[in-house]
Amino acid sequence: MATELNTRMMARALQLARRGQYSCMPNPHVGCVLERDGAVIGEGFTQPAGGNHAEVQALAEAGDASGATAYVTLEPCSHIGKTGPCADALITAGVSRVFAAIEDPNPLVAGNGLDKLRAAGIEVEVGLLEADARKVIPGFISRMTGGRGRVRAKLAMSLDGRTAMASGESQWITGPAARADVQRLRAMSCAVITGIGTVLSDDCSLTVRAAELGLPVAEAELASLNQPLRVVLDSNLQTPASAAILDGAAPTLICHDEKLDASTAIVASGVDRLALGGDENGLNLAQLIDYLSARQSNEILVECGPRLAGAFVREGLLDELIVYMAPVLMGSAARPLLDLPLEAMAQKIPLQIEDMRKVGDDWRMTAIPQY
Amino acid sequence: MATELNTRMMARALQLARRGQYSCMPNPHVGCVLERDGAVIGEGFTQPAGGNHAEVQALAEAGDASGATAYVTLEPCSHIGKTGPCADALITAGVSRVFAAIEDPNPLVAGNGLDKLRAAGIEVEVGLLEADARKVIPGFISRMTGGRGRVRAKLAMSLDGRTAMASGESQWITGPAARADVQRLRAMSCAVITGIGTVLSDDCSLTVRAAELGLPVAEAELASLNQPLRVVLDSNLQTPASAAILDGAAPTLICHDEKLDASTAIVASGVDRLALGGDENGLNLAQLIDYLSARQSNEILVECGPRLAGAFVREGLLDELIVYMAPVLMGSAARPLLDLPLEAMAQKIPLQIEDMRKVGDDWRMTAIPQY
Repeated sequence: MATELNTRMMARALQLARRGQYSCMPNPHVGCVLERDGAVIGEGFTQPAGGNHAEVQALAEAGDASGATAYVTLEPCSHIGKTGPCADALITAGVSRVFAAIEDPNPLVAGNGLDKLRAAGIEVEVGLLEADARKVIPGFISRMTGGRGRVRAKLAMSLDGRTAMASGESQWITGPAARADVQRLRAMSCAVITGIGTVLSDDCSLTVRAAELGLPVAEAELASLNQPLRVVLDSNLQTPASAAILDGAAPTLICHDEKLDASTAIVASGVDRLALGGDENGLNLAQLIDYLSARQSNEILVECGPRLAGAFVREGLLDELIVYMAPVLMGSAARPLLDLPLEAMAQKIPLQIEDMRKVGDDWRMTAIPQY
Repeated sequence: MATELNTRMMARALQLARRGQYSCMPNPHVGCVLERDGAVIGEGFTQPAGGNHAEVQALAEAGDASGATAYVTLEPCSHIGKTGPCADALITAGVSRVFAAIEDPNPLVAGNGLDKLRAAGIEVEVGLLEADARKVIPGFISRMTGGRGRVRAKLAMSLDGRTAMASGESQWITGPAARADVQRLRAMSCAVITGIGTVLSDDCSLTVRAAELGLPVAEAELASLNQPLRVVLDSNLQTPASAAILDGAAPTLICHDEKLDASTAIVASGVDRLALGGDENGLNLAQLIDYLSARQSNEILVECGPRLAGAFVREGLLDELIVYMAPVLMGSAARPLLDLPLEAMAQKIPLQIEDMRKVGDDWRMTAIPQY
């Protein structure tokens, strides 16, 4: 049974885990607290890939951790990756008890790390604040259990559900706090998908810009080191050579129709091309998500206009919709939130509102489609 | 200076005031608490028109109120209406101190009641919880200061800002809790305006139904006694004789174009007709609001489709927009929140979000247009 102390320590470990969310991908961001006699003696979170895992960070901070209780937000690893297994490190350090919020979601290794701890005589408890811990690494869990990362679209709209005037004019619907929030969404993503329409109209760069994250300087710099892969859905290879998205500031993937002869396409530094199937509705989005997931993309962000966002919903590929709603009316001639032609109430798509909060003067709604 | 006790007592008086909001129109709903030595000795709120005002109710409950402090949410009246002046009643009862949250908003009588109290040697303090008190009777204040009641539209939409499918199908977007909330909005209104389109498509009755208010039985029965005036904007007198809105369950006002020969119009029990000016955009809404305000309508509710709601916004006549947002996507072919054709971002209408709360599974947004 977990005591109030145990719960408090795990809550702290979850806070720490979030500190790795912008920088340790494709690894899951994990937090670890070491406690002895009610006092914290070491804390850690997952460092950028190749660096220490949370447990090793916490053990290093503690020095002597013998007899301590460890709180980890994810089962300690038992395999040797770029770093040694964390389960072994905890055993060697002589901790006497381990609380793990969740088992490793990878069914092939789930429980191995915990078994190793138990075999070494360490008391192990699983499931403390499990629901909260799952919300910290939804993309990693989704990829490990279903093979696909979590696909999340962000859209900015007026209270009456409009994303741009009929002319395309849309700057700015939301305020600076919402735009900083989008920067943070980008920073926690492994890939950011957009459409050629957005590239041509906005000349977006889709980079994470440290100064715009609204984070403390050191955190912002860490968050901007790891730029997400920029993905453009560009059936006919129309991305101009001068496009900001080809500026080399981050890796870029241009996706085109496989029926196209791509031999004459622009080749620029850091730019890859991917041929996808397609039909009159556009490129095969499921194929793209599978490709990105195979490239270890946990969190996949879609930043686009209503057409592409609507296509993701129609395909049932969108796991989460983040809508920034500005306190403004843009009127009935303006563009919709999603191109999604439905005819009858029976076709409406229910949503589960997971979160609703004020961000600056705007409201952010996190909605999960119930296909 | 107000103490914590004073503030707590006035907060209680504001709670009491709300208990009259469904039943005492066209009088403002006022609350009164009588306190002596820190104990409540009497409470009251405005009774249905012709009945006691809050102060008289509280004095009756107290019996002996000599030396007490009275907390009233609005300046006690000094004129003789259907009941005697409350200021005199407080003087006769021998209260020693009066806290009034706000002065009477009617500039012609503001301060008279307070002056009468002061002249009788009673200590008077004005302004305690004033901002809260103003929010309790916004329509009365608006009518007293500007000549017009408060015009409030309620609309139900999907998260993507749609109010009906293209076919007109719309039942039900929101859930039972939101619909009960609408019943309460109706019950606190002096008039409910709709358009002939809604009458023809929904055959709405626009009555307050005690069983649907979601209130305790006694409160619900009181709230449903005072049915708001049902107003139909019906330029060409198309309301069918069989329409529910002509059922006699509440008074009805049919507004038609003054250019129309109305001599052949249906005459039913409890149904009045009003000729309004009009042009190609419809009837003159400002003229209607002036008429209803002259009929002592404090809170005026607009329950209609996007066309009429859009017209109220375009005319700058809408003071408050209450939108129930259902967690659902209805798609881009569906009908807009408001018919409001704007072309450029510079024309967008800013809103001030006064309140955002969950009502059942839906979200209720209270927005004030900043014309």
